[in-house]
Amino acid sequence: MKATVLVRPKAGILDPQGEAVRASLRALGFGVTAARIGRIVDLELEATDPVPARAAVERMCVELLANPLIESVEIQLVSE
Amino acid sequence: MKATVLVRPKAGILDPQGEAVRASLRALGFGVTAARIGRIVDLELEATDPVPARAAVERMCVELLANPLIESVEIQLVSE
Repeated sequence: MKATVLVRPKAGILDPQGEAVRASLRALGFGVTAARIGRIVDLELEATDPVPARAAVERMCVELLANPLIESVEIQLVSE
Repeated sequence: MKATVLVRPKAGILDPQGEAVRASLRALGFGVTAARIGRIVDLELEATDPVPARAAVERMCVELLANPLIESVEIQLVSE
């Protein structure tokens, strides 16, 4: 099955990349008051059962995909 | 209103960052057969009407946020 992990900087955490995007969009004339940049990780998993698949993706987030101190994580499972 | 832009490498486009994540997850013992890495751009817009807001975000994607040759874009609007 497939999983999508959305990793975003937590509220209050400085996001210089997002600030640069906000400034650039405003310089281009767009009415943008804030921008924050995160990551998408699209995974194809060998697991076919959603319960252990979600547990595995949660462990992946802790061990590699995100920094829980400064990033929040949203996991979406897509069964095929 | 708020908008979220999901930017992903198109199918067939080489994604070395995703390949590195796949290899690292497998080295950690996870059953992952593929990984692809994209970006999330969360925007706060001055616009309050969804139709011009979406049109503006589409122009932002062309002018700054994505490379249409190698990336696909998904726009999600969230009214407040």
